[in-house]
Amino acid sequence: MANSIGKSLVFTSFGESHGPFIGGVLDGFPANIEIDFNFIDQELKRRRPGQSELSTKRNESDACEIISGVFNGKSTGAPIAFLIPNNDHNSKDYEQLKSVYRPGHADFVYDKKYGIRDYKGGGRSSARTTASWVVAGALAKLLLIKSFDCQIQSVVASVHDINVPEIYTVDWSQAEQSIVRCPVPAISAKMEEKIKQARDSGDSLGGTIATKVTNCPVGFGEPLFDKLNADLAKSIFSINAVKGIEFGKGFASTLMYGSEYNDGALSLDNKEGGITAGISNGHSIEFLTAFKPVSSISKPQNVMDTDGEIRELIIEGRHDPCVLPRAVPIVEAMTALVVADHSLLNLKFTKI
Amino acid sequence: MANSIGKSLVFTSFGESHGPFIGGVLDGFPANIEIDFNFIDQELKRRRPGQSELSTKRNESDACEIISGVFNGKSTGAPIAFLIPNNDHNSKDYEQLKSVYRPGHADFVYDKKYGIRDYKGGGRSSARTTASWVVAGALAKLLLIKSFDCQIQSVVASVHDINVPEIYTVDWSQAEQSIVRCPVPAISAKMEEKIKQARDSGDSLGGTIATKVTNCPVGFGEPLFDKLNADLAKSIFSINAVKGIEFGKGFASTLMYGSEYNDGALSLDNKEGGITAGISNGHSIEFLTAFKPVSSISKPQNVMDTDGEIRELIIEGRHDPCVLPRAVPIVEAMTALVVADHSLLNLKFTKI
Amino acid sequence: MANSIGKSLVFTSFGESHGPFIGGVLDGFPANIEIDFNFIDQELKRRRPGQSELSTKRNESDACEIISGVFNGKSTGAPIAFLIPNNDHNSKDYEQLKSVYRPGHADFVYDKKYGIRDYKGGGRSSARTTASWVVAGALAKLLLIKSFDCQIQSVVASVHDINVPEIYTVDWSQAEQSIVRCPVPAISAKMEEKIKQARDSGDSLGGTIATKVTNCPVGFGEPLFDKLNADLAKSIFSINAVKGIEFGKGFASTLMYGSEYNDGALSLDNKEGGITAGISNGHSIEFLTAFKPVSSISKPQNVMDTDGEIRELIIEGRHDPCVLPRAVPIVEAMTALVVADHSLLNLKFTKI
Amino acid sequence: MANSIGKSLVFTSFGESHGPFIGGVLDGFPANIEIDFNFIDQELKRRRPGQSELSTKRNESDACEIISGVFNGKSTGAPIAFLIPNNDHNSKDYEQLKSVYRPGHADFVYDKKYGIRDYKGGGRSSARTTASWVVAGALAKLLLIKSFDCQIQSVVASVHDINVPEIYTVDWSQAEQSIVRCPVPAISAKMEEKIKQARDSGDSLGGTIATKVTNCPVGFGEPLFDKLNADLAKSIFSINAVKGIEFGKGFASTLMYGSEYNDGALSLDNKEGGITAGISNGHSIEFLTAFKPVSSISKPQNVMDTDGEIRELIIEGRHDPCVLPRAVPIVEAMTALVVADHSLLNLKFTKI
Repeated sequence: MANSIGKSLVFTSFGESHGPFIGGVLDGFPANIEIDFNFIDQELKRRRPGQSELSTKRNESDACEIISGVFNGKSTGAPIAFLIPNNDHNSKDYEQLKSVYRPGHADFVYDKKYGIRDYKGGGRSSARTTASWVVAGALAKLLLIKSFDCQIQSVVASVHDINVPEIYTVDWSQAEQSIVRCPVPAISAKMEEKIKQARDSGDSLGGTIATKVTNCPVGFGEPLFDKLNADLAKSIFSINAVKGIEFGKGFASTLMYGSEYNDGALSLDNKEGGITAGISNGHSIEFLTAFKPVSSISKPQNVMDTDGEIRELIIEGRHDPCVLPRAVPIVEAMTALVVADHSLLNLKFTKI
Repeated sequence: MANSIGKSLVFTSFGESHGPFIGGVLDGFPANIEIDFNFIDQELKRRRPGQSELSTKRNESDACEIISGVFNGKSTGAPIAFLIPNNDHNSKDYEQLKSVYRPGHADFVYDKKYGIRDYKGGGRSSARTTASWVVAGALAKLLLIKSFDCQIQSVVASVHDINVPEIYTVDWSQAEQSIVRCPVPAISAKMEEKIKQARDSGDSLGGTIATKVTNCPVGFGEPLFDKLNADLAKSIFSINAVKGIEFGKGFASTLMYGSEYNDGALSLDNKEGGITAGISNGHSIEFLTAFKPVSSISKPQNVMDTDGEIRELIIEGRHDPCVLPRAVPIVEAMTALVVADHSLLNLKFTKI
Repeated sequence: MANSIGKSLVFTSFGESHGPFIGGVLDGFPANIEIDFNFIDQELKRRRPGQSELSTKRNESDACEIISGVFNGKSTGAPIAFLIPNNDHNSKDYEQLKSVYRPGHADFVYDKKYGIRDYKGGGRSSARTTASWVVAGALAKLLLIKSFDCQIQSVVASVHDINVPEIYTVDWSQAEQSIVRCPVPAISAKMEEKIKQARDSGDSLGGTIATKVTNCPVGFGEPLFDKLNADLAKSIFSINAVKGIEFGKGFASTLMYGSEYNDGALSLDNKEGGITAGISNGHSIEFLTAFKPVSSISKPQNVMDTDGEIRELIIEGRHDPCVLPRAVPIVEAMTALVVADHSLLNLKFTKI
Repeated sequence: MANSIGKSLVFTSFGESHGPFIGGVLDGFPANIEIDFNFIDQELKRRRPGQSELSTKRNESDACEIISGVFNGKSTGAPIAFLIPNNDHNSKDYEQLKSVYRPGHADFVYDKKYGIRDYKGGGRSSARTTASWVVAGALAKLLLIKSFDCQIQSVVASVHDINVPEIYTVDWSQAEQSIVRCPVPAISAKMEEKIKQARDSGDSLGGTIATKVTNCPVGFGEPLFDKLNADLAKSIFSINAVKGIEFGKGFASTLMYGSEYNDGALSLDNKEGGITAGISNGHSIEFLTAFKPVSSISKPQNVMDTDGEIRELIIEGRHDPCVLPRAVPIVEAMTALVVADHSLLNLKFTKI
């Protein structure tokens, strides 16, 4: 269960890394929106493995076919379903994983929860499934851009101990020119170096991604339990490696006095991160997401096998030493889905 | 909309701070569970204003009446509804707030979203409503304790710049003896001092709360979009002042190498915080929540009024200088609701 | 579970017949709608027991108190919660029912499903709970009237073998003047006579109720699984005694040829009953609901007891010999909730 | 929106009649259930057009490919997604329909609701989409058979004025041998004759389908708003041509006295149709569904075009003169989905 997210705009995901397709269904998308197929492809390319020397060499072409819900280039109000073929299921890489529980992966908990596990590439728990999130997110972005000129951008704010100070105030316009997706070229170069070192030593890195939503209208978010920040947090924690999230000043706000923090409607420095009492307040929505280091490393490690014995494991598959650059479009996609959902939840009853 | 939370165990909240009652409905609660009314009262007392010299002097007796769903002391499977009378609506404190937008409060966004605002004590957005969350959470705790001996405890980990190092490894058994609800007496004393200083200067403080769920069975959490950590994050962000959350090593994990972080099924140090790939892994669930400083301060501040003009405001109501001690049972309640909901979502189909 | 109905306008019901209150929460009600308290009272009076010599003598004053969601006479967007006190719990009538399963009642299935049963007046399964549906329905009616001048009316179309031919084409304006709520005075008189006979012989009757929704805008209803007729059918089957429903020509349409039936957009005789392919088509929505005879009769009957033995039972409580007249406002209420919900689901995304 | 149905077992449908695929996602299906692919194919064949001389000549091969959620022949707990290619989109048949509103079809209401319409074969509103319902229903049937030996069968009870008296008491075992799917051979032959006459005169017929669920455990169905009969009614009204439904004695019960009707737990004649107070009572669940005559007829008819003008239309596509025989597996599928969903909603919390 629970392969759907959203209330008015409902995204349902399906597929495993080693089946014929992964895909999704986006239900509740308004009719008569022009669908820009190139934009969807561009977004998928940003997530694609092998896009730079920093990422896995797996060849996922990630061609997306929309199979319903669009007629003559426009949405019809019917559910938009799409498929992405899996054309590189190199399953032999995974046969050794049948009887071990990889650290940080779903292997152990799936076995306990379901009593059966598709061990090929993680099956359903594979990060491969996020390609379909990116497609759904691209559709959500199209809706937000055309409706409100509302834009969503994420950038890499830190890789391991290399970070961009004051990430929300620096210029983000060059981030996509960096293969790390860090907006500051000099810092980006250092991050790149760090990632290569980790890769060469068979290790992996974590880091943080900053996200900014601009032109989000005031009033998105439901007051009590479907707060905009609450729904964003939920959607972002759907990404496997995420271990933390903070809005605006976040954890740093705990070190301020109320008199110092209070900015409310006057504030120019947006300590709230664009959301007050769960509702967008007209400022940019700003939040930071923490990613743990990638779980799959090629260094030998001691792991538990399915008989409860300790065993040495060397993971031979092709894995990113740092997912941050490729996680950027995934964070954006989940953000877009939530903001677009709330745009529909916030429709006004004007007939009165 | 969105005054309900949960999928199998659904909590619906209603009421405003200055109406006759606040209350809630807990639907999906299994039948035949003994309901310990004293326990519910105890939990409410832990949230009650005026419980110590550190908190507001408002007198909320918080007597809870269960009006349905319980028969001869046991749950019947019918929705458990309950009421908590509001017996201290000192509304004159609030008349001045009719035409200003208090910083950090819902005033501005409610006006923009709904075009109407109950300005008495924040109306629906008042923290008063969390009393009903505590009742629902107490019921969820009863379910978890009786079913799995699963226990939930939160403690204050930091107040402003005073914090407990290695919060998850210190002994938490004395936390309730501290009026700050900090488990380390020496640090608790410093926090108390700090809060009194803030109170005396008309200012306010934030801090962090650590939460631990023990004896949570392996397998709670749905793999994709209803991950256990995702649902916990959503529920915790429902608390107004929350600005960040992290599980296990959280943001600190971004500074580790994969080879250092990987602990998986072997781990004794629980860097994952008890949840892997969104599913409980058998370790204690551990997470840290960041609270911004209390928005209502008695120091004069410049605020925007409903005409868009800047005006000086002195908030005269009675407010906590630091909500952390009283937020502890609220964090526990939201945690309990989520874990109990997932216990029902995880029921096994054994008839096959 | 499942004490809520609706997607955008969510009604949650709580309470048992012999607790202190029954009540409900209506979430998603738009802000700034004037709440006509007199209208709500009127609607409750139409459902009230003892309103005529045809109905039970139970005295339910059915005074409704709205405890949240309304400020200065207008809805605020917060959940509207309300309570109706139960002031005539004459529980001794019911003690004999502890160990028998009344025919046609929930007694047996509740015991099997939950292993515990509130035997006082049916507890949660009591028709008493429908009083709260009527309040929620009254609020939904207010919304529909003010927004679209959309009106909902139900009338008694048949009692046992006495029926109004061509029920949708006769004048319904006098129905409320009849104590049976039948629109044709001569037929109403015969129904009244029939009901008195049944009452005097300790027996009960069923019948049918016709419903008409006028001025429902074109386009309400979702195409696939939340069709307007599907949601109406679901809501109407929530009423315990309902055994059948048909829209437009209903079962009689099975006896027509396609060439005879097809009326589509041209039709003046509305064979479709106002809904085509699940979506309102601009004609009046018309449907007929079948009620089985009242289960509680005072004639002695053989029943099963909780030990599986056969026993003679004489039900001594005060029960309607025919629920149809009092079921009219309940059918209207469930209809109003569904149509109002769909009015919100049909809000247009106009910002594009 | 609203292309999903179910609470614990959620079926999401997608696809249009003239896109590359239709398909669906079944989420919440328990792990470790053996998937019998032959059975799914058999069920699809029962719905397939062209299966007999009574149905349309359209060639829909209806080969179903399961693309996720099954591993080594067993369900994994991941969502089961499947595709059915559309290999006979003879779109030229439909070009003439671009500017007219066919009677009884979704054409007019879709145009008004969405402002855009996929006029090729009805697009999303095409009965073609029910093929995916049959696949999901087949999976649900597998779950019910293996878990409870719970079986679902539907038969044709009437075609136009030819009907089987006492449909629930006759032997249904030979129904699949009849091309009409009527269980009584002599009556089946008359129905066949009637259908051929209608076909030859370019007209169409309606009728009724009876459904029986055997071995449904006591206790399925939620007491208030998710009653088993309410959810069944909702799911059955999802089928486009359905205009009425009745359980057990249905509309005929309105002609009985209470003393005559009451059978409760004693009853051998199952007047309730296996459901009391919304919950399965251990008897067979029995209900009757009314289908209006097929909307598409080849006789010339006057219709409205998109300019509001009246125009003569001759529908040239290939359409069934009577959908009843092919609707049988669709009714069974929707029934199976609902009963299987309720089997999961009824899982007991046994850890207490």
